[in-house]
Amino acid sequence: MHFPQPLRLQSGASLHDYHLMYETYGTLNADQSNAVLVCHALNASHHVAGRYADQPKNVGWWDNMVGPGKPLDTDKFFVIGVNNLGSCFGSTGPMHTNPATGKPYGAAFPVVTVEDWVAAQARLADQLGIRQFAAVMGGSLGGMQALAWSIMYPDRLRHCVVIASTAKLSAQNIAFNDVARQAILSDPDYRGGDFYAFGVVPKNGLRVARMVGHITYLSNDDMAEKFGRKLRDAAETGDYKFGFGIDFEIESYLRYQGDKFSEYFDANTYLLITKALDYFDPARAHGGDLALALANTQAKFFLASFSTDWRFSPERSREIVQALVSNRRQVTYAEIDAPHGHDAFLLEDARYMNMVRAYYEQVWNELGGAGSTPTQAVRSKEYA
Amino acid sequence: MHFPQPLRLQSGASLHDYHLMYETYGTLNADQSNAVLVCHALNASHHVAGRYADQPKNVGWWDNMVGPGKPLDTDKFFVIGVNNLGSCFGSTGPMHTNPATGKPYGAAFPVVTVEDWVAAQARLADQLGIRQFAAVMGGSLGGMQALAWSIMYPDRLRHCVVIASTAKLSAQNIAFNDVARQAILSDPDYRGGDFYAFGVVPKNGLRVARMVGHITYLSNDDMAEKFGRKLRDAAETGDYKFGFGIDFEIESYLRYQGDKFSEYFDANTYLLITKALDYFDPARAHGGDLALALANTQAKFFLASFSTDWRFSPERSREIVQALVSNRRQVTYAEIDAPHGHDAFLLEDARYMNMVRAYYEQVWNELGGAGSTPTQAVRSKEYA
Repeated sequence: MHFPQPLRLQSGASLHDYHLMYETYGTLNADQSNAVLVCHALNASHHVAGRYADQPKNVGWWDNMVGPGKPLDTDKFFVIGVNNLGSCFGSTGPMHTNPATGKPYGAAFPVVTVEDWVAAQARLADQLGIRQFAAVMGGSLGGMQALAWSIMYPDRLRHCVVIASTAKLSAQNIAFNDVARQAILSDPDYRGGDFYAFGVVPKNGLRVARMVGHITYLSNDDMAEKFGRKLRDAAETGDYKFGFGIDFEIESYLRYQGDKFSEYFDANTYLLITKALDYFDPARAHGGDLALALANTQAKFFLASFSTDWRFSPERSREIVQALVSNRRQVTYAEIDAPHGHDAFLLEDARYMNMVRAYYEQVWNELGGAGSTPTQAVRSKEYA
Repeated sequence: MHFPQPLRLQSGASLHDYHLMYETYGTLNADQSNAVLVCHALNASHHVAGRYADQPKNVGWWDNMVGPGKPLDTDKFFVIGVNNLGSCFGSTGPMHTNPATGKPYGAAFPVVTVEDWVAAQARLADQLGIRQFAAVMGGSLGGMQALAWSIMYPDRLRHCVVIASTAKLSAQNIAFNDVARQAILSDPDYRGGDFYAFGVVPKNGLRVARMVGHITYLSNDDMAEKFGRKLRDAAETGDYKFGFGIDFEIESYLRYQGDKFSEYFDANTYLLITKALDYFDPARAHGGDLALALANTQAKFFLASFSTDWRFSPERSREIVQALVSNRRQVTYAEIDAPHGHDAFLLEDARYMNMVRAYYEQVWNELGGAGSTPTQAVRSKEYA
């Protein structure tokens, strides 16, 4: 969808106009009450669920969560996935033409914040005719967007679903992000962000950035279990290679992840997204008081965290829960004992999935249950 | 000290000849029983304590631990600091001339292991006339060397002092090391390890390597306490900068650490030392059974770990303690509640320092106490 009106950003800069790429699942009901917005995290996109007819391997990033009969059931809800500004999956981003120069934005693409994304998403909701979402939902950075929705547009969501997230990054989180940024910025192929013009990509920087990021997504225990000190080619040599190539399985795995990522992800997008993460801190405008920041929220909340997540540990979710409870908001909180670290929010786990399913059944019942079945529904396209 | 005889390494390669840079403190007593070898970790050297007359700012890396009247009291003990092979502080390393080519070794410097270092250190002890150390001591990678001494030369140390160490790296530890290596190896200025010939240094790679390493040395809590989300120039702007420069104090700190390190440390040395860390695993030759690996040790052991160390957590020290106890070795173990993460082993902490002091008093008493006072002592030089 094209938005011809300028978007003023938190930084003071403006985007002259922009596109948002979005995807929908299920059917919007007649009173437009069954819409759920799913916000994506670092390297994901609008493609939340399902697969395209011509790309059978391109499965949506939360396909285990969203779909017919799944925890967020698209037989009931009308689900929207939207790619954020600055991303590299279709919405306006650094690789697109800057109308002011006629060249790709590159590093001149304005820094966007979680709040900017939410403001852009709200305009999309307007265009789709959705006054109030049944829920806004996200994991990790997506959870930050859901939280920002509850603060910025308190009456536009009935429920706010925040998974494996935090109300602000810690110094350690920022430190890891800055390592990733420095790896990209100091790659000579980054060329000050204008690498598009040179036909190169700062692959080495992106690769290291992804490797370090990936370590923080997995739990220490899970890594130990999956890889431990297993040698890559132990069957062949049975011994260390005494060089700087690959000895251990974990090295092979990480380098593969890094290589794959550097093939498809945009370096400027990576920088932008890590900055959006670093900057998110709704309590900042309230002297650091998160309860105050959440005082005007009206939604009901569902939060979940995972025991072995050391990127955004359960403690960080508990801080949000406490701030909400001190505001007498209705909060459901699940702390799930799962081995997979931060990545757990994307993975199959019966307890987790059942919790979310149960929550959405409740949301559905609140909407009037079978009464809201989209019998007289219209397709989202008609609103565009 | 020059060693003209070749050193056969674990990899099968040999060093034709080599130098070891070492430094001593205190006086060796007549029966050579009061010597303590202090092994260094990643970026340290033979310069363990004190300062040079002409370099008053160049304080030894464990100066709070080693010196007259300090926990390892050089009024009693004869302490040796030795720089390891492959390092960049004077012992033979990648920047030195390869006798086979007449050019710097560069990446052709053979991969050295903890065991190789210990074998080289044993030759130094031979030359210094030290048959048995009162103790071999080290923190982190230095602790691995102490442990390897107890396995390789069981009768050549009375005590083995292992601080904030581990009997093997975890997958996560290896992963962080590999990120650092990839940052260096993929820096175009690395030039396949031969950067010396090109008059360049892979500073960007070293910088990122150091930044990621540094994150693992500090505890999450300590980082939160010291830096939190404090802005660097908050006084000036009071706001985010909305760019990819420095916003947060933690970014400024890490970049400064990275820059400083890249000014003085050798990239090939960094690669070698991370590999020595990765490869250390004495249980490996015993089917993974650490108790079996430690079965022939004869030393008494002192181990210490720090509660907030997430690089080598207390759990890793406890594994060593258990393996020693199952061998009925005499073990003293201190788990110190300290906020400073892995770095705690280098920092002032009264409980920690008092534990080490008390242990060395015991070692001293075992040696005959005042009777071993080096009254008829000879300077180490005479043994060289």
